[in-house]
Amino acid sequence: MTTQEALFNYTLRLGDTNLILAQRLSEWTGHGPFLEEDLALTNIALDITGAAKSLLEYASTIENKGRSADDLAYFRNDRQFFNAQITEQPNGDYAKTIARQAIMDCFDYYFFTELAKSKDETLAGIAQKSIKEVTYHLRHTSSWLERFGDGTEESHNKAQTAINQLWQYTGELFEMTEVDEISLKEGIAVDLNLVKAKWEKHMADLLAKCTLTQPENVFMQTGSRTGIHTEHLAFILAEMQALPRMYPDAKW
Amino acid sequence: MTTQEALFNYTLRLGDTNLILAQRLSEWTGHGPFLEEDLALTNIALDITGAAKSLLEYASTIENKGRSADDLAYFRNDRQFFNAQITEQPNGDYAKTIARQAIMDCFDYYFFTELAKSKDETLAGIAQKSIKEVTYHLRHTSSWLERFGDGTEESHNKAQTAINQLWQYTGELFEMTEVDEISLKEGIAVDLNLVKAKWEKHMADLLAKCTLTQPENVFMQTGSRTGIHTEHLAFILAEMQALPRMYPDAKW
Repeated sequence: MTTQEALFNYTLRLGDTNLILAQRLSEWTGHGPFLEEDLALTNIALDITGAAKSLLEYASTIENKGRSADDLAYFRNDRQFFNAQITEQPNGDYAKTIARQAIMDCFDYYFFTELAKSKDETLAGIAQKSIKEVTYHLRHTSSWLERFGDGTEESHNKAQTAINQLWQYTGELFEMTEVDEISLKEGIAVDLNLVKAKWEKHMADLLAKCTLTQPENVFMQTGSRTGIHTEHLAFILAEMQALPRMYPDAKW
Repeated sequence: MTTQEALFNYTLRLGDTNLILAQRLSEWTGHGPFLEEDLALTNIALDITGAAKSLLEYASTIENKGRSADDLAYFRNDRQFFNAQITEQPNGDYAKTIARQAIMDCFDYYFFTELAKSKDETLAGIAQKSIKEVTYHLRHTSSWLERFGDGTEESHNKAQTAINQLWQYTGELFEMTEVDEISLKEGIAVDLNLVKAKWEKHMADLLAKCTLTQPENVFMQTGSRTGIHTEHLAFILAEMQALPRMYPDAKW
């Protein structure tokens, strides 16, 4: 694998993770629990879609084979997507959406903080913009998770169930492959072990504050780094890609 | 009807029209024809939801009976909604969504320009903020309508069909009731005849530019001013209100 191929795959993976997370989150648009939260969730989804767009545009430039960001988003099948499996998990109830988002916001916060130091100026720039946004997202979802965890017995149980269901998908976030190793050597990629240590500490503190229990000895799912996904991704893609695929040559 | 009741009903009608339009538009979130347009449409939906929220909050204050903006949004049935029927019409294909949005953006542009002069400072403030947003929306949807109308034969036909289908719902936008008359005397409401003249001129020019034909001798639908709606509104409300109604006393 050349350094350019590694950079392409690295950027594509980041773009996919953001794209699919935004896609899931945006399913709440117009269906939030109240007006204020509907606006907040949609704003978060917009930030993440914006990051996905920048990353896929950069991936398109690196690849340099005539595939645009839209081509990458709308004309690949599920085996060609590299988003982390946690992002494709169903929204479930509101507590589950918030739990998934808090896990990802916390990951993104430490990940983008490291990526902002990348020698690749485009990635560093995207990361810098994202840090500001993710700082707000993390504050928002953390305060919700606390309200659920430390709220009624029902809301506590829902949040705990969500954490229990989602934890098996967190291991994958820190898996490093050849793509990471090559780009790390170039000073481009992030050392995910470093991010993992910070994420684990932060999540442990957050869950304690929310009176939630961190699952232990969980068998971690794996696969997305090689394009293996849970059954949910294909449905997301079917919905997301329907219109562009119906009119592939449309001049909009 | 007291002037306060008229102001409440006037504000509620504006809030409802914005809320339902935003709701329809946000169905596109994550399903736009490409990434850039997905972001643009979602941003427009967010602006309109923001206006709806401000208006419903103000309506809640005027009513002063303990119903919050969320209560107004989520705990009224379709006969208690006063949004213009055009806003509840199905999205259809992308051309239809754009046509509906262009019609409403043009209306809102002239309507809010007048409302910004209202003696009611809250309404004038909301209108001033909206003018800036709607100016951008109108530019966006007009350029799309032109691209459709002046594009391929297929896109032209779709845009023309959309205009033909929607035109019957435009008359209602300019209907003035007792609510308008009372608030107009107070220097609060907008003279919709004035808005109508400007809207008609603008739409005639826009449609001509788009090589689209303006429908003639159309029988105009009516009803929303008294809570009569097409069959679509109940379905929108069912979806929008499901979560808050499931947990009416939830402390989120």
